[in-house]
Amino acid sequence: MAVYTQVPAETLAEFLTRFDVGELVSAKGIAEGVENSNFLVETTGGRFILTLYEKRVAADDLPFFMALLDHLAGEGQPVPPAVPDRNGREIHELQGRPACLIQFLPGVSVSHPTAGQARAAGRAMGAMHGALTGFSGWRPNSMGVDSWKPLFERCGSALDQIRPGLYGQAEAMVDHVLGHWPSADALPRAAIHADLFPDNVLMLGETVTGLIDFYFACTDFRAYDLAVMHTAWSFDADGRNWSAEIGDSLVKGYCERFALSEAEHAALPILAMGSCLRFFLSRAWDWLNTPADAMVTRKDPIAYLNRYRHYAEGRARFA
Amino acid sequence: MAVYTQVPAETLAEFLTRFDVGELVSAKGIAEGVENSNFLVETTGGRFILTLYEKRVAADDLPFFMALLDHLAGEGQPVPPAVPDRNGREIHELQGRPACLIQFLPGVSVSHPTAGQARAAGRAMGAMHGALTGFSGWRPNSMGVDSWKPLFERCGSALDQIRPGLYGQAEAMVDHVLGHWPSADALPRAAIHADLFPDNVLMLGETVTGLIDFYFACTDFRAYDLAVMHTAWSFDADGRNWSAEIGDSLVKGYCERFALSEAEHAALPILAMGSCLRFFLSRAWDWLNTPADAMVTRKDPIAYLNRYRHYAEGRARFA
Repeated sequence: MAVYTQVPAETLAEFLTRFDVGELVSAKGIAEGVENSNFLVETTGGRFILTLYEKRVAADDLPFFMALLDHLAGEGQPVPPAVPDRNGREIHELQGRPACLIQFLPGVSVSHPTAGQARAAGRAMGAMHGALTGFSGWRPNSMGVDSWKPLFERCGSALDQIRPGLYGQAEAMVDHVLGHWPSADALPRAAIHADLFPDNVLMLGETVTGLIDFYFACTDFRAYDLAVMHTAWSFDADGRNWSAEIGDSLVKGYCERFALSEAEHAALPILAMGSCLRFFLSRAWDWLNTPADAMVTRKDPIAYLNRYRHYAEGRARFA
Repeated sequence: MAVYTQVPAETLAEFLTRFDVGELVSAKGIAEGVENSNFLVETTGGRFILTLYEKRVAADDLPFFMALLDHLAGEGQPVPPAVPDRNGREIHELQGRPACLIQFLPGVSVSHPTAGQARAAGRAMGAMHGALTGFSGWRPNSMGVDSWKPLFERCGSALDQIRPGLYGQAEAMVDHVLGHWPSADALPRAAIHADLFPDNVLMLGETVTGLIDFYFACTDFRAYDLAVMHTAWSFDADGRNWSAEIGDSLVKGYCERFALSEAEHAALPILAMGSCLRFFLSRAWDWLNTPADAMVTRKDPIAYLNRYRHYAEGRARFA
């Protein structure tokens, strides 16, 4: 949520001459995404998001992300593909960082989705999964099931600094999820978004105009993507209240566009618990490693412990 | 350089119904200004900057700032006026903060102005001063000459933590500037921008498309505005090198649109030294009061000590 790298207007104007996009009219650093620098750039030819990638890991994975976006855009999905330069290149270097010029998409991220918006978002995920059946790219899920125990151990007893007793609660979550996680070949695996929070869905009314921020996209259980969405969309911010109406609308919308197998449907609760654990652990790690006075919002890990309990106790279900 | 207050899309869409601007299409938090939250908002009717004012001092002064912008826009100056709602109101409340919807202006802030761009910026300031001769609003300069000794004293011996010996150097600057500052009625006083750095001038090529960020605007020596611009535009970032070409172009452009009296011209060096002291002190204060690990860029106060010396030693002059 910050602009880490400044790009002087003169440098940007020069950069844009590589592309067939006209001349620079305006550029504003925008507070989008978490770990990259983003600019909303207007030229005489259109509007674009310029992203500079600040982390090395993302840079190595850029070819996968860009191939995924190109594939989805080619299938008519509402994703923002990178704009190729005059030589067809999509991945550039700017201010010493990998950089892509990306199509701007209209729409806003809703904060309190209605049932109609949840159904539309579910449909959008289903359609995206359909479009990805022909995509052959592969990327391991760096935040997937294999990472959870090591991340829990790195957090360690410091978890109790967040709230007394949290270490033990986290340990029980890890044990339960790892003990019940489907085996690697039990469910269909495919490229997934893996982070389709409301933030990452642009809408106008009940129409999805954009699926964005594919920088956690990876290969994993396809149904895990729907489970992540369910945990992200159908609770209030602190995870205390679950909305059956929103949750059911997501699943209903999804199934209107892509079929869930019986095995996938049956696995959704444990996949959702894994998703809660994944966001609990990454938030807890960030919480413990972000100075309280830093100007970034620390997201509360407890909100994901609360969500986990809803699934564990059968209070949050899948239609 | 941050978005401090989030505005949910639903809240924003509802807010926009007060205005005759059509429906919300897109909204991005932008990294603009220093102490406010800003959003680039697109509707079916146009593009706007939505500003939420985070500091109480700015809120009290909003009627002055908005009257100033309305006056300048009415005189055809390239400033972004607030958009009135259907009842003619410009100052609103949103998320508990004063808020204004402001016209979007194209253009980019140059980082390394050419002589032609400096001359255009000087002309824009001269034209603005001409347009303000008919403006009767009044606001004291909270960062003006009366504030410098108290701010120096609040920084105190901690200045030596920035660089050994800095306290004594700052004291000598304060003594010299206050000892040579023109008496209150020695020079014409008027509404001025008081912070017309390159950041705050939008340009397309050598055309000024916008003068922005009037939140330090106040009543002070009119020529002080030109002195501030001279200190901000005609040095490299660390203040070690002065460009006579840029400095002279600023003054030349200014004088093409507004006359400097002999007394004003003669006072420019001491006004410039005062400007250097003002930015030295505010940067030093921020430096001493911003945690080094906070995610905001601390601006180096020494860069303004260096500039001061150019003027004090006659190495930076006024054409």
